[in-house]
Amino acid sequence: MDTKLVNLTEALASFDDVYSPRVVARMNDYEVRIAHTSGEHVWHVHDDTDEFFLVLDGRFDVAMRDADGRETTVELRKGDTFVVPRGTEHKPSSQGGSILMFEPSGTSTTGDRYEGEIPDHVDSTTGHELT
Amino acid sequence: MDTKLVNLTEALASFDDVYSPRVVARMNDYEVRIAHTSGEHVWHVHDDTDEFFLVLDGRFDVAMRDADGRETTVELRKGDTFVVPRGTEHKPSSQGGSILMFEPSGTSTTGDRYEGEIPDHVDSTTGHELT
Repeated sequence: MDTKLVNLTEALASFDDVYSPRVVARMNDYEVRIAHTSGEHVWHVHDDTDEFFLVLDGRFDVAMRDADGRETTVELRKGDTFVVPRGTEHKPSSQGGSILMFEPSGTSTTGDRYEGEIPDHVDSTTGHELT
Repeated sequence: MDTKLVNLTEALASFDDVYSPRVVARMNDYEVRIAHTSGEHVWHVHDDTDEFFLVLDGRFDVAMRDADGRETTVELRKGDTFVVPRGTEHKPSSQGGSILMFEPSGTSTTGDRYEGEIPDHVDSTTGHELT
């Protein structure tokens, strides 16, 4: 019986890099991931999956573009939850914080498509193991 | 574009009953639910799905039985995450607290099978809307 528990505070303290999610739990074919956040992410799209965010600490904003190219930014604070619908162009940014995400295993942090160059502080990954 | 954000602290303050989950977000065919917890739940099993728990506050324990009937109890505190594997008989209990769960839409709080009678303080439900 797998009885592994992971404390989010301890897990967040175990690594420093931003926008580089660690997998804290797997359930069915989904993963629960956590990440430190700071600075601008890239515009990207997940064509086939929604993406759930919970802000664990600090600030985390999500800019989104609708089909007409109009931008909306949702400002999230600690305890806020938000779902980016599949197919929605979005770009996270943060003044500093940490988040929890729920998404299908294999989902890339930079989506199925992204815009421009991936900055050095953004890790294009399907998630790392906690160490 | 659905830009509904839900704050977990506010959502928890909007209802009092225990073991009666509210749906705070939907993503793909999954739900994010929150619940107040207090007292003994019932032994039950989800045959076809794992179940993810995050303790938001207080204490939340999960007793589990293996195939030989041996019991193990995992004691969870604020910030702890835990997955009950599918097919595992389990019984939550709590000295008082609140939790967040991820599970497929339609998952019942009392599983596909449960043992004995459902006590009055346990709501057998697939989740309620936040109001």
